[in-house]
Formats: sequence, structure tokens, C-alpha cells
Amino acid sequence: MTRQELIGLIRERRSFLCVGLDTDPAKMPEHLRNEKDSVFHFNRAIIDATIDHCVAYKPNLAFYEAQGIEGLRQLKMTMDYLHSLGKPAFTIADAKRGDIGNTSQQYAKAFLDPKGDFNFDAITIAPYMGSDSVQPFTVYEGKWVILLALTSNKGAFDFQLTTDANGTPLYQRVLETSKQWGTEENMMYVVGATKAEMLTDVRHTVPGSFLLVPGVGAQGGSLEEVCRYGLTKDCGLIVNSSRGIIFASHGTDFAERAGEEARKLQQQMAAVL
Amino acid sequence: MTRQELIGLIRERRSFLCVGLDTDPAKMPEHLRNEKDSVFHFNRAIIDATIDHCVAYKPNLAFYEAQGIEGLRQLKMTMDYLHSLGKPAFTIADAKRGDIGNTSQQYAKAFLDPKGDFNFDAITIAPYMGSDSVQPFTVYEGKWVILLALTSNKGAFDFQLTTDANGTPLYQRVLETSKQWGTEENMMYVVGATKAEMLTDVRHTVPGSFLLVPGVGAQGGSLEEVCRYGLTKDCGLIVNSSRGIIFASHGTDFAERAGEEARKLQQQMAAVL
Repeated sequence: MTRQELIGLIRERRSFLCVGLDTDPAKMPEHLRNEKDSVFHFNRAIIDATIDHCVAYKPNLAFYEAQGIEGLRQLKMTMDYLHSLGKPAFTIADAKRGDIGNTSQQYAKAFLDPKGDFNFDAITIAPYMGSDSVQPFTVYEGKWVILLALTSNKGAFDFQLTTDANGTPLYQRVLETSKQWGTEENMMYVVGATKAEMLTDVRHTVPGSFLLVPGVGAQGGSLEEVCRYGLTKDCGLIVNSSRGIIFASHGTDFAERAGEEARKLQQQMAAVL
Repeated sequence: MTRQELIGLIRERRSFLCVGLDTDPAKMPEHLRNEKDSVFHFNRAIIDATIDHCVAYKPNLAFYEAQGIEGLRQLKMTMDYLHSLGKPAFTIADAKRGDIGNTSQQYAKAFLDPKGDFNFDAITIAPYMGSDSVQPFTVYEGKWVILLALTSNKGAFDFQLTTDANGTPLYQRVLETSKQWGTEENMMYVVGATKAEMLTDVRHTVPGSFLLVPGVGAQGGSLEEVCRYGLTKDCGLIVNSSRGIIFASHGTDFAERAGEEARKLQQQMAAVL
């Protein structure tokens, strides 16, 4: 999905919501757990209930890998289902990969290749290994690398906020350096919502780039704050909510409640756009 | 595998060699490529030819994920084969994962859990997200996290070598900070061989920790230099070679040639120990 198509989708649905498909079987409604392909059935119901209110889906690979090959098979079923719908959605492999150049090429093939098992639009990448670990993800037409800049967890303070001799924190150096590796058409950044005021500094460095903002809801960030500091004329934001939507209810009404939570966020977003 | 067991294995085999199973189907001998389960058959032949000369195997996940679910199935077959042998080997998932705490728990389950599909002894982790992204990997008894410190690629210069106000490079800060997250019994570090003299600084900070050293061979590092700066009384090194061993020949003699290359390195290592 190109930048123009993504912006068009945001305008059409009046939403910049991403639904995080962090499908932990232990948290799924009990009536589903022992069904065959239960993770896929859960995801499909969530997708059906939320697709009119969101623009993106972000399965975190860890939850599927934790179920072994069986989990990845159900991730593939989920992606096949998303691709089969008449309604477009931007798909993000939240995989946080990154390796030396020839190896990152293999990861890019695994997640972004249209002929591969998954065919995601985007993948999240950790920047620690630098340029050649990131660039192989920028070569697929209409596909995206989403680089970790400032994450929303406690551990973000360990390294991301350490400053160099000029007082520049590492996450800012990541933003500045990585601008040479891609463009606003193929590179986004992860910026956690729990530090919304830092979005001002982020916007100073990457004024036009899309930002993927996790951590609204369960992780404590405020949508209003994120919009105040991060919104651009093209929106420039994809705001993720995972647990707050998909586990809004653990009963038989899980999909209905997920749809309601997504719709609430969509309405707040529509008011801002 | 505990630290004592690993040290015992190194003494017994007189080797601290790790064979990198970066099995790219495009580089496998032609006569194997169209066979069913060809990646597994290739790996099994490499393992049979090298296990007396090495102590560890390190499949890089990217090469398996690039083949989709089918690739991961053959990785599982490879791991099952390794576990079925009477001869022990330390197994490393070169996966470079790392995510917020509850998500890293899922990755730990995926790769280290004895009841999971893979049951590796160790996994490589990127440090960018800090403490809570690393600690969930330290809770499995006899299992290891191998944290990226200084990698051997060009991109290592982008962030790992940037210095803070005190002149401390980021990779040193990673070593110092992460010492609080684990012990010499459950944490190792990746330190690239192309900058062997930096092992002096690394040893100053982590004098007793095991180091996983990639980049000997194809990536240009020298075994002699690595040993000069990195060896400890307990060895303290696992030195990896991937392409130099597994793709030593692209003909029908690939396994025999892999065995020869592994044996050459083993003999150099025996001389040092």
C-alpha cells in the first residue's frame, strides 16, 4: 500500500486506528479455546467487527511463534483472510527484526514478498545493527519499514534516552541517521504514546513521516495528547490499540465489544481529522 | 545446557566452534534442491560431518522464515534431529528478537521452552528496548540469552560506536547495564570478530562472560586475534563460522568439505586451549 493509498484510506474511514492482533490463546474467550484453528477464528471475528473502524492490523509475531508452527499457520490463515476481503487494510508484521545485510534480505522476503506466506505491507525493525540491517526492507514496491525510535516500555530508558556528547538522545540519532536510508514513502517510525510530549521533538526531525504509535489504552497513552503533538496535514499517525480492543470482553460477546471499542476510538479520531 | 556443561563439552571436544546453519536453499548443492525436505537433509548431512569438531549449532531464523511455514517445519526437523543424537551440542536460535516485557515472554516460550517446537539452549536478543525486553529470556533453567553488543557489520558504526558525554560507546553501555539483568550462567554477548582488538575493552567490562563471536571466515575476522584478546581460563568464547563451513563446496562433496573446514578450525582451537 502506497503512502497516497494509506492517506486515502484514512480519509475514507475517518480513522487512523490500528488493531493489534496480539492473540494470546490464554486470554481468548473460553468457548473458543478448544476449537480447531481457534486463533484464526478469533482473529476473523475481530477483523469482521472492526474493519470499518480501523485502517490497519498489526499481529505481533511473538504471540504466533509462541504456539510454534501451528501458530504461524494460523497467522497465514489470518493474512489470507485479510487479503481476501474486498476492504483494504494496511498490514503490519510487528516482528522487530534486524540483522546483517544478507540476512535482513531474508527477513524482508519472509514478511514482505508478495509471493511469500504472509505478504505484509510493513514490518517493524530494531535499529541497533544500523544501515545494512534496515535497507533491505525498503526495496519492495509499496512496502514499508517501521523503525523503532522511542518505545513505550520501561526499558526504553536504558538506551533510547541516553544522550551523546551534544545532548542528543539515541532515539533522535536513530531518526536523523535513518532518514538517509529511506523516504517518507517507505519508512515510518515507532514512537510510544506514553511520552507524547516527546512527539514535538520527533516532529522536528521527521516532520512528514508517518508514526506508528503503540501504547494507547492498556499501556497508558492518551489519544488526545498524541494528536496534539503528532498530527500532520496528511494525518501522519497510525495509532495502535491491542488488548483494549481484542480483549475488551472475554465472553461470547468478545467481537461485538471489540467492535464497540474500535468504534469509540474511530469517533474520537474522526473528530480530530 | 549449563555453563559447567558447556565448559565440559569444550574441553572434551577441544573445540569452541559453532557452525552457523544459515541454510539458504539457493546456495545448496543442486542435486539436493528439488528433493523433499531438502533443507533438513542438507542440515543433517552438515551436522553428521561436523559434530565431532564443534560444540554448537546456530541456525539463523531468517533463512528458515524466508521459506515460510515450510522452512520452519524443516528447522523443527533439524532441532529434533539434534536432540535425538547421543552427542550433545549447544543450540542457538539466532533470532535477534526483543520486545516489551509481556511480548518477550512469548518469544522466550517460542524458542526456549522445552515443550515448544524448537527447545533451543540460547537465543540472540537485540538490546534497543532495554531491561524488560531481555529479562524474560533469563527465567528458563539452563537456558541463555545472548545479547547483541558489538556486531560485525558495516551498520555497527551507526549507533553501537556512538559515544555518550563520558566517551563511553553504546555497546559498552549495553554491556555494563545488562550485567544487572542476568549472570555469567545465563547471559552471553555477541561481539564481532572484525574488531578483535575491541575485545580488550569488552573483557574489561565482562571478564568472565561467554562471548559469541560471529564473523570468523567469510566476514573477515581472524581466529588468532579473537583468542589473543578474548580467551579466558574457562575458554569464554564460542566462535561461529557459517558460509565458510556449510558452503565450502556446492557439489556432492559438500558435507565432506564442511567436515574438513570444521576440523581445520577445531585443530587451531585445540592448539590454543
